[in-house]
Amino acid sequence: MSVDRVAVVGAGLIGTSIGLALARRGQEVTLFDRDPQRAAAAAALGAGRAGRLDDPDDLDDRDHVVVAVPPDQTPQVVSELERLMFEATFSDVSSVKTNVLDEVETLLRDPSRFCGGHPIAGRERGGPGAAQPTLFDGAVWAITPLPATSARAAEDVAELAQRCGARVVRVSAAEHDVVLATVSHAPQLVASVLAAQLAGAGTLAPALAGPGFRDTTRLADSDPDLWGAIAAANAGPLAGVLERVADDLEHLAGLLRGGGAAAGPAVADAVAAGNRARALLPGKHRSRAGRSFARVGVVLADQPGELGRLLSAAGAAGVNVEDLSIDHAPDHPVGYVDLHVRPEAADRLVHALGGVGWAAHRND
Amino acid sequence: MSVDRVAVVGAGLIGTSIGLALARRGQEVTLFDRDPQRAAAAAALGAGRAGRLDDPDDLDDRDHVVVAVPPDQTPQVVSELERLMFEATFSDVSSVKTNVLDEVETLLRDPSRFCGGHPIAGRERGGPGAAQPTLFDGAVWAITPLPATSARAAEDVAELAQRCGARVVRVSAAEHDVVLATVSHAPQLVASVLAAQLAGAGTLAPALAGPGFRDTTRLADSDPDLWGAIAAANAGPLAGVLERVADDLEHLAGLLRGGGAAAGPAVADAVAAGNRARALLPGKHRSRAGRSFARVGVVLADQPGELGRLLSAAGAAGVNVEDLSIDHAPDHPVGYVDLHVRPEAADRLVHALGGVGWAAHRND
Repeated sequence: MSVDRVAVVGAGLIGTSIGLALARRGQEVTLFDRDPQRAAAAAALGAGRAGRLDDPDDLDDRDHVVVAVPPDQTPQVVSELERLMFEATFSDVSSVKTNVLDEVETLLRDPSRFCGGHPIAGRERGGPGAAQPTLFDGAVWAITPLPATSARAAEDVAELAQRCGARVVRVSAAEHDVVLATVSHAPQLVASVLAAQLAGAGTLAPALAGPGFRDTTRLADSDPDLWGAIAAANAGPLAGVLERVADDLEHLAGLLRGGGAAAGPAVADAVAAGNRARALLPGKHRSRAGRSFARVGVVLADQPGELGRLLSAAGAAGVNVEDLSIDHAPDHPVGYVDLHVRPEAADRLVHALGGVGWAAHRND
Repeated sequence: MSVDRVAVVGAGLIGTSIGLALARRGQEVTLFDRDPQRAAAAAALGAGRAGRLDDPDDLDDRDHVVVAVPPDQTPQVVSELERLMFEATFSDVSSVKTNVLDEVETLLRDPSRFCGGHPIAGRERGGPGAAQPTLFDGAVWAITPLPATSARAAEDVAELAQRCGARVVRVSAAEHDVVLATVSHAPQLVASVLAAQLAGAGTLAPALAGPGFRDTTRLADSDPDLWGAIAAANAGPLAGVLERVADDLEHLAGLLRGGGAAAGPAVADAVAAGNRARALLPGKHRSRAGRSFARVGVVLADQPGELGRLLSAAGAAGVNVEDLSIDHAPDHPVGYVDLHVRPEAADRLVHALGGVGWAAHRND
C-alpha cells in the first residue's frame, strides 16, 4: 500500500482541494482535466503538477488515481483510465454510490482495482478557484468498496483520505445513498424550494430576511445541473425523504389552518423532535437529546475558581448538574453560566444558590 | 422625541441585547423582569441597571419602554405598564404583529402611545447569557404602527432601533406577517422537520452529516414552546408557505419516483429558481438573478495591474464582463478570477485570452 504518487483527474473544487491538501504535506500530485488549461490553473494555484492524458509518462507511474468528475461521467472516465494505467488503484468522489458503482463494476475489466470514495465536504461554488487546502479537515470520507475491491485499493483510498485530513467511514453503497439523501440531497432541494418562496413574498421580503433565512437557504446557491444529475442518480432514496418532509409540513399546515388549540403544541413537538435529532450530531451536547432539562442562569465573576465554587454549591444542595454552557461578555469582567438540571430540581437550585449569595434565576 | 431614558421589560436574549447595544453608546437602560434575579443578571452583564416594577421611581421617568417578552404575553404586559407609566411611549419586539397588535389595540386605554416593533435578529439560544451588544448591527428593525400610533411613538422606536445599530423598515402588520412567515417562521419549521429525518436514517447518518446539513438545520436548535406560540399566532400566513413548500417537494418526489428523464431537469429548474431567489437578498450579486452567465476562470499573478490587464484583454476581444469573483490562494503568489460573461461569448473569450498569454478555461 502506497499513495505517494497520486493522480487527480478533474481539476474542479474537489480535485483541486485534494491537491492543495496533499501539498500541505509536501506531497505533489499530478492533475489532469479534459481541459488542460483548467489543470494548469489548478497547478498554478499550488495543487500539484499539470499532466497530460496523452503522455504515457504522466500516467503510468501512479499509485492511486482519484477520479473527481461529476457522477454521470465517473464510470466512463474510470474505465478509460483503466486501459491507460496498469499499476494504479482507483477511487471516485461521487456523492451517489449505488448507480455509479454498478456501472463502474460493469465497465471495468478488473474491478478489484477500484474502491468507491466520497469526501463529504463541499462549497456552493465550484471550479479550481474555490478550492481550499482545509476543505477536508475533520470531514468524513466515506469508503464504499465493491464486492470485488482488493484490500490494497480500499487501503489506498483510506490512506489518501487521512492524508487529506479526513476521517474514514466504511459503509455499503446502499446505506450511503439513503444516508446522503437525508443529510445532503434532500437538504439541498429543501433549501432551494424554501429559497424560491422569497420570490413570491413581496418586495420587502428580501430586506426582512435575517441570518436564519440565509443559513437555511445557503445551499440554494448551488449548481443546478450538478444537482439535477445527483438527484436523478439517487432518485429512490431522495424521493422517500422528500415525501416524508412534505407529509410532515402538510400535517402542520393542516393543524394551523384548523385554528384549534392543537396547532401550537404540535409545532412545539415538531421543533422538539428537531432538537433531539440535532443532538445526535457529533459535537452536540448529549444532554439535549431525549429529555429536556431546565436551565438555571448564574452570573459569574471572571476569576479563577468561581465555576468550581458554583458547582460545589450546587452539589451541596444535592442537585446534579447534567450539563452547562458558559458565555463571557466581551470587555466585561463577568461571565454567565447556564446550568442544565432536571426540571424538578430547578427551583430548589435557584433557592439554594440564592441562599449562599449567587444571583441565580430560571431561564425557561 | 427622545429615547435617552429607556426601560426594557424582559431580560431575555433580545431585551438584554438592547441594553448591551445602548451601553456601547454610554446610554444606560433600566431593566425589568418578572424574575428580579434575571434582571440583576442582565445588569451584571453590563446591559443596564436592574429596576423593580413595584418602585414608582424606577417606572415613571422613562421616555420609552421596550416590551421584550414572548408574543403571547406582550399585550398583557403593555397594558399593565400603561397603568403604571404616564409619560413613556411603548414598543414591542414580537415576531408576529397582526394578532399581537389587535390585542394591544383592544387592551390599551391610549393606543397612540404604542408602536409595534420587531428587531429581525436572534440566536438559537435564549436568556441573558446569550445576549450580544452587536446582535442588531446591520439588522432590520421592522416598525408597524397602529392606525392610532402617534408620530412621537413611531419616532421613538425608530430612534431606539438606530441607536441599537439597526436599519428601520416601516411596514403594515399584515405584510410583515406574510413576509416573516416566508423568511423566518417557515424556515424554522422546515429546518426542524428536515433535522428530524436524521433520527430515522440509521446509525451512520449523524457521522455523515456535513456542513450543509448543519447550516440548513441550524434553526432546529430553537426553543419548542416559543416557536409553538409564534406559529399559532401567525397560523394563516405560515400554513400558506408550508403548503407551497410541501407541494413543490411532492412534485419533485413524484418525478423522481417516476424514473423518467424529466426528473433531472426538473430538479435543475428548482435549484435554478432557488439561485434566482437568493440573488434577491441584499449583498448578493445581481448578475446571478434572472439569467445565468458562463464562467471563465483565469489564474492571476497577485501583483498590481494584473486584473486591469486581464479586463482590458477581455474588452479588446469585444467581450463584456458582467461580473467577476476573485479568490486568493492562501500563502500562494497567485490568485484566481472567475469572469461571468454571456454564454455565447465564453468560448470566444477563452480563445482570445489564450492568444495573449492567459491560462483561461471554462468553468461550467
